[in-house]
Amino acid sequence: MTLYQNLADVIGARIEQGLYLPGDRLPSVRALSVEHGVSLSTVQQAYRHLEDQGLATPRPKSGYFVPAARQAPALPNVIRNAQRPVEVSQWDQVLEQIGGEPSEKLIQLGRGRPDISSPTLKPLLRSLSRLGRRQDLNTLTYGNIYGDIGLREQISRLMLDSGCQIPATEIVVTTGCHEALSAAIRALCEPGDIVAVDSPSFHGVMQALKGFGMKALELPSDPLTGISLEALELALEQWPIKAIQLTPTCNSPLGYIMPEANKRALLTLAQRYDVAIIEDDVYGELAYRYPRPRTIKSFDEDGRVLLCSSFSKTLAPGMRVGWIAPGRYLDRVLHMKYMGTGATAQLPQLALAEFISGGHYEPHLRRMRAQYQRSRDVMIEWIARYFPAGVKVSQPQGSFMIWVEMPEGFDSHRLNRTLASQGIQIATGSIFSAAGKYRNCLRMNYASKPSAPIEQAVRAVGEAVAAQMAES
Amino acid sequence: MTLYQNLADVIGARIEQGLYLPGDRLPSVRALSVEHGVSLSTVQQAYRHLEDQGLATPRPKSGYFVPAARQAPALPNVIRNAQRPVEVSQWDQVLEQIGGEPSEKLIQLGRGRPDISSPTLKPLLRSLSRLGRRQDLNTLTYGNIYGDIGLREQISRLMLDSGCQIPATEIVVTTGCHEALSAAIRALCEPGDIVAVDSPSFHGVMQALKGFGMKALELPSDPLTGISLEALELALEQWPIKAIQLTPTCNSPLGYIMPEANKRALLTLAQRYDVAIIEDDVYGELAYRYPRPRTIKSFDEDGRVLLCSSFSKTLAPGMRVGWIAPGRYLDRVLHMKYMGTGATAQLPQLALAEFISGGHYEPHLRRMRAQYQRSRDVMIEWIARYFPAGVKVSQPQGSFMIWVEMPEGFDSHRLNRTLASQGIQIATGSIFSAAGKYRNCLRMNYASKPSAPIEQAVRAVGEAVAAQMAES
Ligand SMILES: Cc1ncc(COP(=O)(O)O)c(C=O)c1O
Ligand SMILES: Cc1ncc(COP(=O)(O)O)c(C=O)c1O
Repeated sequence: MTLYQNLADVIGARIEQGLYLPGDRLPSVRALSVEHGVSLSTVQQAYRHLEDQGLATPRPKSGYFVPAARQAPALPNVIRNAQRPVEVSQWDQVLEQIGGEPSEKLIQLGRGRPDISSPTLKPLLRSLSRLGRRQDLNTLTYGNIYGDIGLREQISRLMLDSGCQIPATEIVVTTGCHEALSAAIRALCEPGDIVAVDSPSFHGVMQALKGFGMKALELPSDPLTGISLEALELALEQWPIKAIQLTPTCNSPLGYIMPEANKRALLTLAQRYDVAIIEDDVYGELAYRYPRPRTIKSFDEDGRVLLCSSFSKTLAPGMRVGWIAPGRYLDRVLHMKYMGTGATAQLPQLALAEFISGGHYEPHLRRMRAQYQRSRDVMIEWIARYFPAGVKVSQPQGSFMIWVEMPEGFDSHRLNRTLASQGIQIATGSIFSAAGKYRNCLRMNYASKPSAPIEQAVRAVGEAVAAQMAES
Repeated sequence: MTLYQNLADVIGARIEQGLYLPGDRLPSVRALSVEHGVSLSTVQQAYRHLEDQGLATPRPKSGYFVPAARQAPALPNVIRNAQRPVEVSQWDQVLEQIGGEPSEKLIQLGRGRPDISSPTLKPLLRSLSRLGRRQDLNTLTYGNIYGDIGLREQISRLMLDSGCQIPATEIVVTTGCHEALSAAIRALCEPGDIVAVDSPSFHGVMQALKGFGMKALELPSDPLTGISLEALELALEQWPIKAIQLTPTCNSPLGYIMPEANKRALLTLAQRYDVAIIEDDVYGELAYRYPRPRTIKSFDEDGRVLLCSSFSKTLAPGMRVGWIAPGRYLDRVLHMKYMGTGATAQLPQLALAEFISGGHYEPHLRRMRAQYQRSRDVMIEWIARYFPAGVKVSQPQGSFMIWVEMPEGFDSHRLNRTLASQGIQIATGSIFSAAGKYRNCLRMNYASKPSAPIEQAVRAVGEAVAAQMAES
């Protein structure tokens, strides 16, 4: 990293931490130059970088200031429906969403894809290419059913950042987070069992519940703090719940980070009612705040938390490499993994192990976090500008996904059909609910660097929303 | 292919087809030179090649002859146990078998690995390496949930060889044949359902039945013709069977090819009792006879056959690319695939599509078939030489796996423990049975080219078997 980027990071972190508040004057160029022993031009470059990130605003003759707090749009509502276990539906809609070809032409604002164009991914491609040439047992034949031990050691090390001390031998590599979640569910539950899920929630999990014949009990989630603990406790009282499945850190689709106290309280509840927790941490490393938030797993003492994650959001989903730290359920999870797919592909595992041990992972994460945070701000501005008044918007604290809520009665499926003719796709809200709620909501992806075509697309979505709202 | 290889193939095919019988004199060098318009030395090279393959024996001054039929060892018995659905056990033993690291040191005669050292695999490595360098949507991001359309078109084309006309749109790419089988089972059955399986049979399927709470009804299989149709009919009469799962072509572990008439008869039975057939064709393209045998799927008219396969045995298991042609169950299978792992990894799919469309697949198959056939003959000779009298041996018609049956009461688990100290591993028979039968049997792999270390290992197995048999 260059000097100016380094400096920009330091100042940026202070702003994020609230050391300088909105409207505050930031230290002068000269003061920073002295404090950090760098040239004036380096400081100026750092400030221009912060400006690009929307973290500093120049005022002629007065220096740099923390931008005044934007008028944040109103947050989405907490939906408090009747709380009872339901059978999951919506497969047709999920398929509509994911069934298409990856395409450069279609602007797929609906997909959960990270930006894969960063130069910090280059070392991964080099490893893939180099290892791809190797004709040996390690790349071409069945690997260990637990996964490559080198990669598991790197994952074990990475997990320290979230407060977890899990030995490599207690981690199983999977075909994406998808398989981790699917194996966890099958390891814990039988058909007919009830699983409590955060709501809105990842459709992959809900489709798995559907496929395995389980029922989902959707728990209302606050757009800032996540799953309602009161609702959870009530549900645990009332229903024979087998497991709680949630994405507490940088939730998709809502983007919140559940406060640490809530995470602890949730674990205590799980202990009291003796249920397992399936924690999806697939976006956890993309929290904008540093150091990254702790996982529920990091507080787990009796092995009841099954932590599921992958490199799909942090690096590249096409690798299909994820993992699970299944605590006391290791044996059953391994069995489920074996019967689902056998061993995981070797080549991407080896390439990832090289990438991480070569020290390329942290710089990549740092860059992506900054990019996504900046894109979030731009996306919120675009929504404020192009969407009609009255829509409500999430305030993502990590990842690259935003949730927009239109008034009750709005139909996001119809919206998507309108947008299809313009080559634009959003994710309709109802696929994030077991019972098909949130039809009036949509999720958009802001992973790519802000660009004119994307701004055009968001604008088109906003205008289509406005037109549809005007009709009714 | 060179001239002499070509000629050797032609003569070899005639021998295989029975045009020349064991003991027959083969055409003279001069006659072949005239017939094929090649030089005498080319014919001599071809004969030496056939000699290497064990297909021709020179007799001084008399020319080349088809080797006298070897005294084939006795075939394994058909086990006719009480036929009733059982819950599957043996997971511990499967794990013992597959839980280890891939290793150059341990001689793993037990694993289902092909030979991955052939130079005909080189173009695949080149594609992997070249594509691995590409930083684009196609390699790094989520692919189509059905699989890459280019690869599906190639698979559709390959399936013509087995008599199937299946459009690419009715094929779903999976994470190995494992996922194909697992998704098929889940698409068809619910917990408690009964699935009829050939016996002995692939442990992956049986562990899947176990994991999903289904029961296996093991059908006795003849070591030459496969599953007993009488036993199947009786079972269909008696039990509410949901599906029949079998590996009819180059069965693992027994190596038989079910005759075409039996395949048709089995399909007719399935129609009469209205059950689905899950056909595992993972070794089908490694049949020693050419053209390859037809699949049951190729006779299927009402979409009740779900054909499962992969490139794991023909090319490289580490790619983890398989497929399923699920007939009328396409939608359900796709759902099961989605909730199990999401989309399949892109890079290996693209590399495989290139490899096949580049014309590299058929030459590779041809070479591997010849190698495996020759290795089979050598392996049978080794067993005849090094194993005690009284063991029975399968006569594989394809693939690279052989089944050895010791007298009743023999314990192959004990054998494996003895062998472990010598760095040798065989597959114990009981993992191929839902109920833990075949403890007196073992399976060995003969994929690698015959070599002194492998001969040593087979000899060590034979001696350990003899020692153990002598004890009791
Ligand atoms: C919350 C959440 N969990 C899991 C996944 C699946 O991740 P993977 O691609 O690693 O299977 C996604 C991505 O769609 C997701 O949004
Ligand atoms: C009969 C049979 N089917 C399926 C498989 C699994 O194949 P894959 O590695 O493609 O998942 C094997 C390999 O172990 C096998 O022997």
